[in-house]
Amino acid sequence: MKKQAVKLEDVAAVAGVSKTTVSRVLNNRGYLSQATIDKVHKAMQELHYRPNIIARQLYQQRTNLVGLVFPTVDNPFFGQLEACLDHELYKRGYRVLMGNSQNNPDRERAYLRQLLNGQVDGLIVGAHNEGIEQYRNIQLPVVSIERLVSKDIPVVAADNYAGGVLATQQLLDDGCQHIIHTNYPHDLASPNMERRRAYEELMRRHGLPMYTYEVSFDSSTAEKIKIFYRLFDEHPEVDGVFADNDTNASLIMQVARKRGRRVPEDLKVVGFDGANMTRTLLPELTTIQQPIQQMATAAVQLLQDQIDGKKTTNSVQLPVKLIHGTTA
Amino acid sequence: MKKQAVKLEDVAAVAGVSKTTVSRVLNNRGYLSQATIDKVHKAMQELHYRPNIIARQLYQQRTNLVGLVFPTVDNPFFGQLEACLDHELYKRGYRVLMGNSQNNPDRERAYLRQLLNGQVDGLIVGAHNEGIEQYRNIQLPVVSIERLVSKDIPVVAADNYAGGVLATQQLLDDGCQHIIHTNYPHDLASPNMERRRAYEELMRRHGLPMYTYEVSFDSSTAEKIKIFYRLFDEHPEVDGVFADNDTNASLIMQVARKRGRRVPEDLKVVGFDGANMTRTLLPELTTIQQPIQQMATAAVQLLQDQIDGKKTTNSVQLPVKLIHGTTA
Repeated sequence: MKKQAVKLEDVAAVAGVSKTTVSRVLNNRGYLSQATIDKVHKAMQELHYRPNIIARQLYQQRTNLVGLVFPTVDNPFFGQLEACLDHELYKRGYRVLMGNSQNNPDRERAYLRQLLNGQVDGLIVGAHNEGIEQYRNIQLPVVSIERLVSKDIPVVAADNYAGGVLATQQLLDDGCQHIIHTNYPHDLASPNMERRRAYEELMRRHGLPMYTYEVSFDSSTAEKIKIFYRLFDEHPEVDGVFADNDTNASLIMQVARKRGRRVPEDLKVVGFDGANMTRTLLPELTTIQQPIQQMATAAVQLLQDQIDGKKTTNSVQLPVKLIHGTTA
Repeated sequence: MKKQAVKLEDVAAVAGVSKTTVSRVLNNRGYLSQATIDKVHKAMQELHYRPNIIARQLYQQRTNLVGLVFPTVDNPFFGQLEACLDHELYKRGYRVLMGNSQNNPDRERAYLRQLLNGQVDGLIVGAHNEGIEQYRNIQLPVVSIERLVSKDIPVVAADNYAGGVLATQQLLDDGCQHIIHTNYPHDLASPNMERRRAYEELMRRHGLPMYTYEVSFDSSTAEKIKIFYRLFDEHPEVDGVFADNDTNASLIMQVARKRGRRVPEDLKVVGFDGANMTRTLLPELTTIQQPIQQMATAAVQLLQDQIDGKKTTNSVQLPVKLIHGTTA
């Protein structure tokens, strides 16, 4: 692809304005009438003029790019979250550099290195790989969503403890005596652990046995299904499940059906997340809904504050709600 | 955020190598032992050195960024597709600029303008807004997925006609006599129309009545549900539905249930897409599965060919398959 030789002067001549005016339109600076802006844009289009944005960035030391480092967009929660983040960032004039870290710490590290190389104005992170030492010395504005990265990085999270209480209480109110929980492995520093803490406190208070099955987010569907078969084998008495996310809840219901259990007659199930796609594809699921849009708005605001040089390490916690389906 | 004053020389001194070696590590050029690479990276990290990638891009006239312009990642098909594209592009050294156009042509136009401003090496597009005139004069490598953009832009699509035949034939084999189809509005230049053409040809051949309900992808869930209630009101005789995507299939089944119809006893349903999330959340749905991973691989290959200066406007069509659930 060749670079065309059209110059700022040519645009000015065709638009019938001065070079300074074209430059002001490009840089969005000073007072400009809509008519002038339209004239310049029209001339740029006619001439196929492409301003050298890269040179401009070099001068401004700003890229107007924000990197998102999350496990994958192929998931109801992260898909909706990244769509909301993209929308909020777009409103503020940023574009999004997508970084699906998947289950690969090397890949998260590589993204971070690239991102640290001056290509983004900030990062919003929520990947699940531990031990990414780069975060500790990070010199860029960073906000985390639902992940404890380092003490200097603010976290936006739902009120996971309250969500764990709502879910467990719903199952107790339904008369369940043998409630099983699923969550991430215990060594992952995630606010999700608050869901487990709430479950365990309520079960202890009611003198009921508690069992948590640990399921990595990044495991394959086949591996997860194997764990859930084991759950029913080891605990045939189970009459309630509080799953840490809706896709696990769905898989558990599928396994339950294969084992001849009817939901909700023989087994009550409560999920967590309540994302758009889950509400569309599995509306019968009773679940704890996270305020995904508000989480995105809060994260972008915290990031903007850091980019603007405001010192802020305050974390934000947002309320959840119980969505009544038919599974509990 | 201030730029630090650490220079290439400082990194070379700390790593105990020459400036040329540091530069070769940064540019990934020439033979380098892993030990040398590690030494340089370690020194860069100690010094918080951030090479000026932007300046390097200006010199190379390459950004190694590829823009994705699709409606939204908050969707089973597009979420999986963008995750696959990101993965394929990452393997080739590109990072992804995410552009959710949503139902807003202005936003798609704005992305295109920004993208045309020299910030990406290429575009992969699949948004649903029509009349985006910029595509016609585009000077960048562009590949489209499931959208007819302009005659010069190659399209990667599933074999939608074969998918339409498989879906309609399944419903005919199930004994359905009153099969209704949903699809995009007729004026949208999309290969999806091939699904409709297949449906209409088979219905005509069997001498059966045909009705297509037009549903915009970007309509709200509430608007879509309204259309599906109308479908049951206007055609109480319906005994089969071939939905143009799985989320519509799910909504139709919800409305059917509200109207007292049992699936599959009273109503058979076949969807389209067969994406990961749908298979996890709604495994009972019989659907036509698109080869999403292969579509991503093909699109990235076509884009790379264009970036490498190979003239190619060949479009690619990939096979689909029927996934047997319990709904048809």
